[in-house]
Amino acid sequence: MASPFAERGNAVDVEEGAEFAPKFDARGLIPAICTHADSGEVLMFAWMNAEALAATLHDGLATFYSRSRGKLWRKGETSGETLCVVEARTDCDQDVIWLKVLPQGRGAACHTGRKSCFYRIIAREGGGFRLAFSDDATPLFDPKDVYGGK
Amino acid sequence: MASPFAERGNAVDVEEGAEFAPKFDARGLIPAICTHADSGEVLMFAWMNAEALAATLHDGLATFYSRSRGKLWRKGETSGETLCVVEARTDCDQDVIWLKVLPQGRGAACHTGRKSCFYRIIAREGGGFRLAFSDDATPLFDPKDVYGGK
Repeated sequence: MASPFAERGNAVDVEEGAEFAPKFDARGLIPAICTHADSGEVLMFAWMNAEALAATLHDGLATFYSRSRGKLWRKGETSGETLCVVEARTDCDQDVIWLKVLPQGRGAACHTGRKSCFYRIIAREGGGFRLAFSDDATPLFDPKDVYGGK
Repeated sequence: MASPFAERGNAVDVEEGAEFAPKFDARGLIPAICTHADSGEVLMFAWMNAEALAATLHDGLATFYSRSRGKLWRKGETSGETLCVVEARTDCDQDVIWLKVLPQGRGAACHTGRKSCFYRIIAREGGGFRLAFSDDATPLFDPKDVYGGK
């Protein structure tokens, strides 16, 4: 199948143009940031290959590439926690994707059952650092119930 | 100098613990997402090595690792567009950093002079895609004035 994406032009084309020519890294992947479309909170970060990116933009449901499983991963296919894409953007270099999403299901985008993967704040302590759980770090589901022994 | 970060434990330690044990990739880098602390808008995405991450968390000024220049890069050192960090988080796997920042200078985090690097929306068009400039895509400075011939 022909690629739905444009060929990369020069820097001016990439930064100032209207052609979408995403840059995939040496592994064929591009990073994707998902934020909640209403609150702006960062929910998760994952990687896409060209097929996952095309599927996400075509269907409006966030789809990633699982590096550990080596295959396409429609977010929520096991948990029911799908992410509807209400807007997708790319950056100046077209090598990052930003998705504004509305979480479905219980609204827990993280595999730990939490709303967001970013449930811990980095705090300075002495010469080092500690993590403090945010106020909304309570899991909305028990991963054991959803993923079984996995 | 001893690392200010903890050793990585097992998955439960990493996901549910209070020790900050960031995971750097094979290149020694970790991705960092910067959002505006007030609006929630994603401003930029960049990479940090251990030294950049420690400097950012220690000093409260976003510092990255420039892959193209092969060195530490205090964001804004040339442009004046520094980013003050008001909160830093990590994700479940501790392999991504989220910084909530307040931009200084003219408030243009992007090297093109724009407020955010994510100034274009991906739109479906026919079987492919096009980019539409967002309403606030007007540059706040001319890169030629700031970076010269670079």
